[in-house]
Formats: sequence, structure tokens, C-alpha cells
Amino acid sequence: VVAALDGATRARVLEDVARGIEAGVAGILEVNARDVEAAREAGLDAAKIARLGLTERGLAQVCAGVRQIAAMADPVGEVTREWLTQNGLKVRKVRTPLGVIAMIYEARPGVTIDAFALCFKAGNACVLKGGREATRSNVALARVAHEALTRHGVDAGALTLIASSDREELRTLLGLSEEIDLVIPRGGEALIRFVREHARMATIQHYRGVCHVYVDAAADVGMAVEIVATGKASAPATCNATECVLVHEGVAGEFVPRLVERAKRDGVTIRGDARVVDLCAGVDGAGECVEEATEADFGREFLDLVLAARVVGSMEEALAHIARYTSDHTEAIVTADARAAAEFVARVRSSCALVNASTRFNDGFSLGLGAEIGISTSRVHAYGPMGLEGLTIERYVVEGTGQTR
Amino acid sequence: VVAALDGATRARVLEDVARGIEAGVAGILEVNARDVEAAREAGLDAAKIARLGLTERGLAQVCAGVRQIAAMADPVGEVTREWLTQNGLKVRKVRTPLGVIAMIYEARPGVTIDAFALCFKAGNACVLKGGREATRSNVALARVAHEALTRHGVDAGALTLIASSDREELRTLLGLSEEIDLVIPRGGEALIRFVREHARMATIQHYRGVCHVYVDAAADVGMAVEIVATGKASAPATCNATECVLVHEGVAGEFVPRLVERAKRDGVTIRGDARVVDLCAGVDGAGECVEEATEADFGREFLDLVLAARVVGSMEEALAHIARYTSDHTEAIVTADARAAAEFVARVRSSCALVNASTRFNDGFSLGLGAEIGISTSRVHAYGPMGLEGLTIERYVVEGTGQTR
Repeated sequence: VVAALDGATRARVLEDVARGIEAGVAGILEVNARDVEAAREAGLDAAKIARLGLTERGLAQVCAGVRQIAAMADPVGEVTREWLTQNGLKVRKVRTPLGVIAMIYEARPGVTIDAFALCFKAGNACVLKGGREATRSNVALARVAHEALTRHGVDAGALTLIASSDREELRTLLGLSEEIDLVIPRGGEALIRFVREHARMATIQHYRGVCHVYVDAAADVGMAVEIVATGKASAPATCNATECVLVHEGVAGEFVPRLVERAKRDGVTIRGDARVVDLCAGVDGAGECVEEATEADFGREFLDLVLAARVVGSMEEALAHIARYTSDHTEAIVTADARAAAEFVARVRSSCALVNASTRFNDGFSLGLGAEIGISTSRVHAYGPMGLEGLTIERYVVEGTGQTR
Repeated sequence: VVAALDGATRARVLEDVARGIEAGVAGILEVNARDVEAAREAGLDAAKIARLGLTERGLAQVCAGVRQIAAMADPVGEVTREWLTQNGLKVRKVRTPLGVIAMIYEARPGVTIDAFALCFKAGNACVLKGGREATRSNVALARVAHEALTRHGVDAGALTLIASSDREELRTLLGLSEEIDLVIPRGGEALIRFVREHARMATIQHYRGVCHVYVDAAADVGMAVEIVATGKASAPATCNATECVLVHEGVAGEFVPRLVERAKRDGVTIRGDARVVDLCAGVDGAGECVEEATEADFGREFLDLVLAARVVGSMEEALAHIARYTSDHTEAIVTADARAAAEFVARVRSSCALVNASTRFNDGFSLGLGAEIGISTSRVHAYGPMGLEGLTIERYVVEGTGQTR
């Protein structure tokens, strides 16, 4: 039903959703406050409660996001390629909706609207299962979407919210391989493992990001310090934050002390290998912000103001470290040597490889895709930021003049 | 390892595989004869034994296929799109191998070489599990591939053949979600169900094809008869064969008798609804080749010289029939009315929609993709003929000049 709607109708429904949320702000915040209160009583940790809470400003951002999605070009029906075969068939590849997308997520109630908006814009129906603690908020937000759908004569089944958080029910949902085309789990490792274990249809993981920056022998050290420092400190809890810097021994003597200075200012702790620690020996204040790394600090997503650091003897050694610890998310090189950059990019196989830029750019907004439903670290269907295109598939349309062979 | 090889080396390995098969034809045929003999003794059905048997001519075709794949443009590293962001980042989408692809298939030993050639050309390693009855032949063919790999210094792990047909072992294989990126089952429904039930990674189905042709009120009846008749008779056991014709009542009176005449000549049995049977009443010889259809004949893949037929009152009715019985494979319309064609194409969501052409064209060779690993009816990753591009994924490569935000 959703796939058959024309793009203008889909856009109008989404504009109506934004208006509906604006009109209902007071009620939504009230219901959300009850979710937050219940979470406090249940003793949820502070980070979870913070993610759960909605604000007037947060809702305004959700609405702005929905309007932005509504205004984007309609991906459905886009002809991505066209050619003629030898026997005169005109072949086109045409974007078409995936069908029914299930999304399993935790806490943040704003995702309910974001995910619906992206799926619906791309012509898909969605089944959303949020966290138990956000149930009241999710129900209130889904109601706004249902009202907008109904107002435009669209089946409310375009958005199915599953309020229950029963694992058995989730397992049943994950078994519906005929009804659901794709499952996207977003959340902690336990959730992703559960989904992968039980899903009988395709799943796309938007998993952890252990992003590396390799500071090459030919790096501009000032640029490298800036890229590494902001890559961690600007948003330490995001999946595209820099978690580990690998610095070539040829520039480590200059780079490490300057990084430590920045780390001190930003409140970042550096967990360095022995050589990094040695290089910090004479640096003022290094005692407070540099610690010796253990093996467990490599390949780790700190989600905090902590950065791993290691000195390497060559790019080869850096690539070997990355191959061992990569999460397939994002890796960057800082270098003025175009050949080193080309080799790094060719040999790293993560969803995004950057040259002389921060790992934080690996998201849909920064790369110019518009909104995204997440950053895929699965090497199937979509890899990297997954925007509207990632919520469609290309089919073949062929025009002939009576050809039979 | 395979992903890091340059395209020229990958092509040379494949040329060597073709040469190796040619040099070893006698030995391969001998070993294959033992597989066939064992299958006869085990009482396998004739169709399976026919698929199992290799001939000199069949092996020559396999070699020609491998050479064709070797000669195709290298998909790895292809830049599919390129743009500049507002802050000056140069973003490219670049094709990269999927990683490790497992293929589970039955009978036909030639698939062992086809699948390896396609996966390897696209920079992937593959794990192949053929049918038990073809074990000797598959081992002989894989040995040729291993020799070619070793000769070029490539790790023989680029092709892992699993000779065992133990279901427990297959289950273990399907659990290796960290090691295998994609599983492609090719075979009967039982195999596909087993794989879907146990796979902990993405699977792409290449499933049955229940292909429909709708003969519109504005059809050129001669063209329609030709498209429907050859769509069935030219290769009745293929997944893109026409299984059901839906004819508009406005042209049924002319179409049905002419189709019956052709069916008689081709040895095709028509299973028609009551109206089709009525229209055949006066047709010479209809008694032998027209039967009344039961409900089970719709939505059925006959894999035989049998064609279902139904008279519909409108295109709407045809679309409703297709929506109910589609296998998401292929649907065609025959019409001289461009608006009817456009509506049909827009409302059908199968992997291929054709106008005035045979359903048999939905394969990689006919559509100009070169070789294919199968025709996907999954609406994720690849939909329709899956060629080299379908065995890759696009990643992001970003070049900056020191951008941090």
C-alpha cells in the first residue's frame, strides 16, 4: 500500500506528522515525563534516562528532521541506469521500496519518528520495537503518525509500533520471514546478538565503531593533532569518534607531546603503549592524562574521553593493527604523501576511509546523504551511512517490441 | 587476501583455471562418470542424474564462461559516484568485495567453477558446498582451481570446497557469522528453508519463478501468442519460464484459440479456468491439450510443458491475481497502450517487469550483465539477476584537507 502511494502524498503525510507533533508537544512531554519517572523508580542508569528524556527543543529537532526528509527527492521510481541490449530491449534499473522494515532499538523515543519518516519516505511500511522504558512516549508519537496517515487515507499499518518488550514476542517477530524483508537492530551488543541469533530474514547491523587514525611519516603534525583531538573530544560517545591513533615513529616525537597538550585541555585520557608513554616523559602534566595501555584498550570503543595510542614503525604495521582490531566502521590517514594515502585507502576495507579528515565525518549528514537510519557495518546491502537509497532496492524494467529470444 | 590482489592477477588466475580444465578433461569426465554411476546405483531420479553428468561439450562451455568472466571489466575499485560536500570534502563511492561468500547448491558440478569464477573476479573468497552425489566431480574441479591459485601465489583458501554433506556440518557453517558475509542457497525449497532457518548471516534467495504474462485489451494478439508460447515452450524447466497467462476478456476470444493451436504444436498442456475452457470448445484438438485448472494450478511453478491460463475482466483483476500469486521473480504485459504498460510496470514489484517481451529475458546474459550467480527474489542487496556488481558492496572514500568539522 505504501509503495503504491505517490511521492507527493508521502511527503504531505510527513509534513502532517511534524505539524501533529508541534500541536501535541505538551501532551507528549507529559507522557514522556512519566516514562522518565518510571525509569528513575526502576533504577535505570543515568545515561539511559538522559537518552529517554524529551525536551521541547528535542521535539523541535525531530520535527525539523521530518520536514527535511519530507522535502528530499523521492527515491522511489528513480532510474539509476538505462541501456539497450543487442536485440533492442530497453533495460532500466529502477528504485523500488524494500517492503516491510522492522527496527529494534532502545531508549531514545525520537527514533520512533525518525525511523518511520525515513522508511515511509522510501515507500516502506515499518514495524518499530522500542525499549520498554520508552513505551508511553513511543505510543504517543506513533499516535501522531497514525493520525496523519489516516487523515490522508493511508492504512495505519504503514507504522506498527510494538509496545511489548517480551523477548518471546521479539523472537516471534524475528521469525516472520515472509512478512518482514529487513530487520535493523540498533543498540547494545546483547540486542544485536539476540537479533542475529533469531532473525530469519536479512539484518543490517549498525554496530560499534572502533575508528583508527594513522598519522603517517609524511603527516602535517598540526593537522594530525587537530584531526585526532577533535575526532575524540567533539563527541566521545558517538560511533564515529576516534578511538585509537597509530603514529609513525618518524613523527611520533613531535606528535605525541602536542597531542598530550591538547588532551589535557580537552580532558581526554590517553592510553598509550610503552613508546607513547616514553615520549610523554618530559611533557608537562602528562602524569595526569597519560596511562599505559593494556591489550584490552586496543579494538575498544571507549564511548568516553579516552583515546588509545600506539607508535608504529611503518604504515604496514598500522594496517596490520587496523586489520586486527577494525570494526569495519571508519579509518583515516593523515599524510601529505598522495601515494601513501592511495595505498592506505586501497588496503583498508571499512565502510569509510578518509584522508586528512576527521573520522567524525562518517555520517549521512556530513557526507551529504541527508538523514540516515544508521551507519551499517554489514558488508551486505548497505555499507556505511544508510540513507533513503539504502531503504530501497533496484529492480529491472524492460521494454520490448515483441522480442521472444 | 583476494581483495588485495590486483584485477590483472585475478583475471590471469581464471584464464589458468580454464586452461587447467581443458588439459584435464579426460580425468574430470572419468571421475564424473563414477559420480553418475554411484547416483544410478543409489537410485537417484533421472532429472538429477542428467544434471549431474558432465560432457566434453559442457566442460567447454564452463571454460568459455570462465574466460568470459576473466575478460569482464574489474568491478573492484570502480567509482560509482563522486561529489563534493559544502566543507570541501571529496566523497566517492567505491566498489569493494563483499568478503567471504558461501554457496550451497545441488547436483550440477559446473556450478563449482562458475561460482568460484564470479566470486573471485569480484575479489571475494568463496566457500562452496555442492551436493553429495557430485562430490568426486566437485573435488576434481576445485583441484584445478587450487592449482591455478597456487601457481599465481594466491592462498588456496580463496576457494574452500566442503565435500561433506552432513547437515550438522552445514549448520555449523551457517553459524559462522563472523567469518562468512553472505550465503547464497541454490536448490529446492527444502534446502532454501534449511539455510534460512539456520543462517546467522545474510542470505540471498534465488528461488522459484512463477512468471505471469498479462495480455491486455490493447495487445497485438499475434505478438502475445508468440511471447506466451515461447515463454513456456523454449525452456519449461527454467525459473524465468512463463507459468501463467492472464488474458483480458476483450481479446480472449481471439487469443485463446490461437494459443491452443500453438500449444498443440509445442506439446504444451493448458490448464485454463472455466472461461478459457469455454473459449476452447470449438477449437480443433483442444480436447487433448486443454484441461480445467484447479486452484493449485495458480501460483505454481510447473517446471514442465504446462501453462495456467485465466480470463480477467480488467488489468486491475490481473494485478490482483499477480499480487496474490507472485514469486517476486518476473511479470510481463503485452499491450500497444503505453499508459497501460506504464501502470502495469509501476504496480508490479517483482525483480523484473517487462513490456512486450518474453519473461525468459530475466537473466543476466539476456539483460547484458554478463554472467550471473542466480536471479535473486530477495528484496535486499540484489534483486533480479545478480552479476559481478551484486557480489560487491560500495564503501565511502573521503579526501579532505584537514577538515575536523
